[in-house]
Amino acid sequence: MSHYPLSIINLVKNISRLPGIGEKTAERLTMHIIRSPLKEAEQLSQSILETRKKIRLCSICFGLSDSDICNICIDRTRNSSLLCVVEQPADMVAIEKSGAFKGIYHILHGAMSPMDGIGPDDIRIKELLSRIKDNNIKEVILATSTTVEGEATASYIAQRLENYPVKVTRIASGIPVGGDLKYIDQITIKIAMETRHVI
Amino acid sequence: MSHYPLSIINLVKNISRLPGIGEKTAERLTMHIIRSPLKEAEQLSQSILETRKKIRLCSICFGLSDSDICNICIDRTRNSSLLCVVEQPADMVAIEKSGAFKGIYHILHGAMSPMDGIGPDDIRIKELLSRIKDNNIKEVILATSTTVEGEATASYIAQRLENYPVKVTRIASGIPVGGDLKYIDQITIKIAMETRHVI
Repeated sequence: MSHYPLSIINLVKNISRLPGIGEKTAERLTMHIIRSPLKEAEQLSQSILETRKKIRLCSICFGLSDSDICNICIDRTRNSSLLCVVEQPADMVAIEKSGAFKGIYHILHGAMSPMDGIGPDDIRIKELLSRIKDNNIKEVILATSTTVEGEATASYIAQRLENYPVKVTRIASGIPVGGDLKYIDQITIKIAMETRHVI
Repeated sequence: MSHYPLSIINLVKNISRLPGIGEKTAERLTMHIIRSPLKEAEQLSQSILETRKKIRLCSICFGLSDSDICNICIDRTRNSSLLCVVEQPADMVAIEKSGAFKGIYHILHGAMSPMDGIGPDDIRIKELLSRIKDNNIKEVILATSTTVEGEATASYIAQRLENYPVKVTRIASGIPVGGDLKYIDQITIKIAMETRHVI
């Protein structure tokens, strides 16, 4: 690397700080940026700074937003009595893309993981409970991941909500659509068999 | 994507314009940038713009430089009678890393490729010939790639230099160090057999 001009060395270093980008890829991207039109480099540069400065967490659901309250929380046409709990903003986006949900969200920003020292107070569970208490929520859908951490988090929240006047549900587990049985893990198949339904 | 705030959508779009970066990776990188310290995002943003604006081609060798003449061309300790011709700036850096060469370079910025409409006038061959004519060059090492285009370019340059009072050489082809013969292509093995030497 030390054979490049200093500004290139710095750019490669800054790009390779991004997750999943090694030095070779960073070098390739740097070469692309040098050759690209100035306008494109300017757009990329501005966009990074603008997004980093503008994006904050919605003060209601903790989703990503460029204003105090996000587009979903402000939308009066959505069913505000149906609350879907997810781990990350990207999970919320995945559900939105499916088009299957017209309620509102709560983003925990993580899952409980005793191994990593992440307890209930380290994610937005307190805020979730007070949201459910203070608002007219009828059903809480726990859509945390089906990992050990996601399941533990869902169980914990379900337990904490036992005495609340809300229905608590969990998204279904089973064979993904288009899934080839021989490539599906045994636990998923076991769950899919146990929760089979009449057609 | 339309489920994210606008600034995020724009950043994902700008990042996914980079070569080899799809929308999923761009989304992941965007999420990282949002969560990273402001200082890190600022550094990345500034570095992109600064590098794009600062880097130009050395007016002697056409290597990447942040001044009119690059560090190598300005270095009086290098052997300026030994000229190594490469296709791309990254090739020059690869040779520099090897530490095996203390001469000077000429970067063609491409290789001849009739299929893609790239002829001798589209790469820096004219500049190479006048450099050799006007300076006291004793040997020209053709270090273009060993691809069809690289070989064609090397042959063309060798031909053009026939009547010049310079020695013209080509970097050696053969089995890479650490190469396992069973994974090496047949043409490379053929060349390595033909150019074998006494030990």
